[in-house]
Amino acid sequence: MITQRVGKRIKELRHELGISQEELAYRANVHRTYIAGLEVGKRNISIITLEKIVDALGVSLSEFFVFESTL
Amino acid sequence: MITQRVGKRIKELRHELGISQEELAYRANVHRTYIAGLEVGKRNISIITLEKIVDALGVSLSEFFVFESTL
Repeated sequence: MITQRVGKRIKELRHELGISQEELAYRANVHRTYIAGLEVGKRNISIITLEKIVDALGVSLSEFFVFESTL
Repeated sequence: MITQRVGKRIKELRHELGISQEELAYRANVHRTYIAGLEVGKRNISIITLEKIVDALGVSLSEFFVFESTL
Protein backbone atom coordinates (compact mmCIF):
# COMPACT_ATOMS: atom_id res chain seq x y z
CA MET A 1 0.00 0.00 0.00
CA ILE A 2 1.19 3.50 -0.82
CA THR A 3 0.12 4.72 2.65
CA GLN A 4 2.54 2.27 4.27
CA ARG A 5 5.39 3.17 1.94
CA VAL A 6 4.82 6.86 2.65
CA GLY A 7 4.77 6.16 6.39
CA LYS A 8 8.05 4.25 6.25
CA ARG A 9 9.65 7.05 4.26
CA ILE A 10 8.52 9.70 6.77
CA LYS A 11 9.93 7.64 9.63
CA GLU A 12 13.19 7.10 7.76
CA LEU A 13 13.69 10.82 7.05
CA ARG A 14 12.65 11.73 10.59
CA HIS A 15 15.28 9.34 11.96
CA GLU A 16 17.90 10.83 9.65
CA LEU A 17 17.12 14.23 11.18
CA GLY A 18 17.24 12.70 14.65
CA ILE A 19 13.94 14.23 15.73
CA SER A 20 10.96 12.82 17.61
CA GLN A 21 7.39 12.48 16.32
CA GLU A 22 6.52 15.36 18.64
CA GLU A 23 9.19 17.57 17.10
CA LEU A 24 8.13 16.72 13.54
CA ALA A 25 4.50 17.36 14.46
CA TYR A 26 5.47 20.73 15.92
CA ARG A 27 7.49 21.71 12.84
CA ALA A 28 4.72 20.63 10.43
CA ASN A 29 1.93 22.09 12.57
CA VAL A 30 0.00 18.80 12.88
CA HIS A 31 -0.88 16.66 15.91
CA ARG A 32 1.62 14.15 17.27
CA THR A 33 -0.90 11.31 17.02
CA TYR A 34 -1.37 12.17 13.34
CA ILE A 35 2.35 11.57 12.71
CA ALA A 36 2.14 8.28 14.63
CA GLY A 37 -0.79 7.12 12.46
CA LEU A 38 0.96 8.22 9.29
CA GLU A 39 4.15 6.34 10.08
CA VAL A 40 2.26 3.05 10.49
CA GLY A 41 0.42 3.61 7.21
CA LYS A 42 -3.00 4.25 8.73
CA ARG A 43 -3.59 7.65 7.13
CA ASN A 44 -4.46 8.49 3.55
CA ILE A 45 -2.65 11.81 3.64
CA SER A 46 -3.71 14.72 1.43
CA ILE A 47 -1.25 16.61 -0.74
CA ILE A 48 -1.58 19.80 1.34
CA THR A 49 -0.63 18.01 4.57
CA LEU A 50 2.06 15.95 2.84
CA GLU A 51 3.69 19.14 1.56
CA LYS A 52 3.79 20.52 5.14
CA ILE A 53 5.44 17.35 6.45
CA VAL A 54 7.90 17.07 3.59
CA ASP A 55 8.88 20.73 4.11
CA ALA A 56 9.37 20.01 7.82
CA LEU A 57 11.62 17.07 6.86
CA GLY A 58 13.71 19.37 4.69
CA VAL A 59 13.24 17.58 1.36
CA SER A 60 11.31 18.28 -1.84
CA LEU A 61 8.35 16.13 -2.87
CA SER A 62 10.51 14.68 -5.65
CA GLU A 63 13.22 13.66 -3.18
CA PHE A 64 10.59 12.35 -0.81
CA PHE A 65 9.29 9.97 -3.49
CA VAL A 66 12.71 8.87 -4.79
CA PHE A 67 12.04 5.45 -3.22
CA GLU A 68 9.10 5.09 -5.62
CA SER A 69 11.16 5.84 -8.70
CA THR A 70 11.36 3.20 -11.38
CA LEU A 71 14.27 4.95 -13.09
CA MET B 1 -0.82 26.42 -3.72
CA ILE B 2 0.36 22.84 -4.04
CA THR B 3 -3.10 21.82 -5.31
CA GLN B 4 -2.76 24.16 -8.28
CA ARG B 5 0.78 23.01 -9.07
CA VAL B 6 -0.37 19.38 -8.94
CA GLY B 7 -3.31 20.21 -11.22
CA LYS B 8 -1.08 21.89 -13.79
CA ARG B 9 1.30 18.94 -13.74
CA ILE B 10 -1.52 16.45 -14.31
CA LYS B 11 -2.79 18.50 -17.24
CA GLU B 12 0.71 18.78 -18.69
CA LEU B 13 1.34 15.03 -18.51
CA ARG B 14 -2.14 14.28 -19.84
CA HIS B 15 -1.47 16.55 -22.83
CA GLU B 16 1.87 14.81 -23.43
CA LEU B 17 -0.03 11.53 -23.65
CA GLY B 18 -2.60 13.16 -25.93
CA ILE B 19 -5.56 11.86 -23.94
CA SER B 20 -8.78 13.52 -22.78
CA GLN B 21 -9.93 14.05 -19.20
CA GLU B 22 -12.46 11.29 -19.84
CA GLU B 23 -9.75 8.87 -20.93
CA LEU B 24 -7.54 9.68 -17.94
CA ALA B 25 -10.52 9.30 -15.61
CA TYR B 26 -11.29 5.91 -17.17
CA ARG B 27 -7.69 4.72 -16.85
CA ALA B 28 -7.42 5.90 -13.22
CA ASN B 29 -10.90 4.69 -12.28
CA VAL B 30 -12.12 8.08 -11.07
CA HIS B 31 -14.92 10.36 -12.28
CA ARG B 32 -14.29 12.76 -15.18
CA THR B 33 -15.48 15.73 -13.12
CA TYR B 34 -12.92 14.80 -10.47
CA ILE B 35 -10.11 15.15 -13.04
CA ALA B 36 -11.54 18.50 -14.15
CA GLY B 37 -11.57 19.78 -10.55
CA LEU B 38 -8.05 18.48 -9.95
CA GLU B 39 -6.60 20.18 -13.01
CA VAL B 40 -7.87 23.58 -11.89
CA GLY B 41 -6.46 23.04 -8.39
CA LYS B 42 -9.79 22.66 -6.61
CA ARG B 43 -9.12 19.27 -5.05
CA ASN B 44 -6.87 18.38 -2.14
CA ILE B 45 -6.02 14.95 -3.54
CA SER B 46 -5.11 12.04 -1.24
CA ILE B 47 -2.02 9.95 -1.77
CA ILE B 48 -4.06 6.85 -2.71
CA THR B 49 -5.90 8.68 -5.49
CA LEU B 50 -2.77 10.51 -6.62
CA GLU B 51 -0.98 7.19 -7.01
CA LYS B 52 -3.81 5.91 -9.25
CA ILE B 53 -3.64 9.01 -11.45
CA VAL B 54 0.14 9.04 -11.64
CA ASP B 55 0.08 5.35 -12.62
CA ALA B 56 -2.47 6.15 -15.31
CA LEU B 57 -0.16 8.92 -16.59
CA GLY B 58 2.68 6.42 -16.82
CA VAL B 59 5.13 8.13 -14.46
CA SER B 60 6.42 7.45 -10.96
CA LEU B 61 5.56 9.75 -8.04
CA SER B 62 9.15 10.99 -8.07
CA GLU B 63 8.95 11.90 -11.76
CA PHE B 64 5.56 13.46 -11.20
CA PHE B 65 7.03 15.82 -8.60
CA VAL B 66 10.20 16.67 -10.54
CA PHE B 67 8.77 20.16 -11.07
CA GLU B 68 8.88 20.63 -7.28
CA SER B 69 12.54 19.67 -7.01
CA THR B 70 14.94 22.21 -5.58
CA LEU B 71 17.98 20.21 -6.76
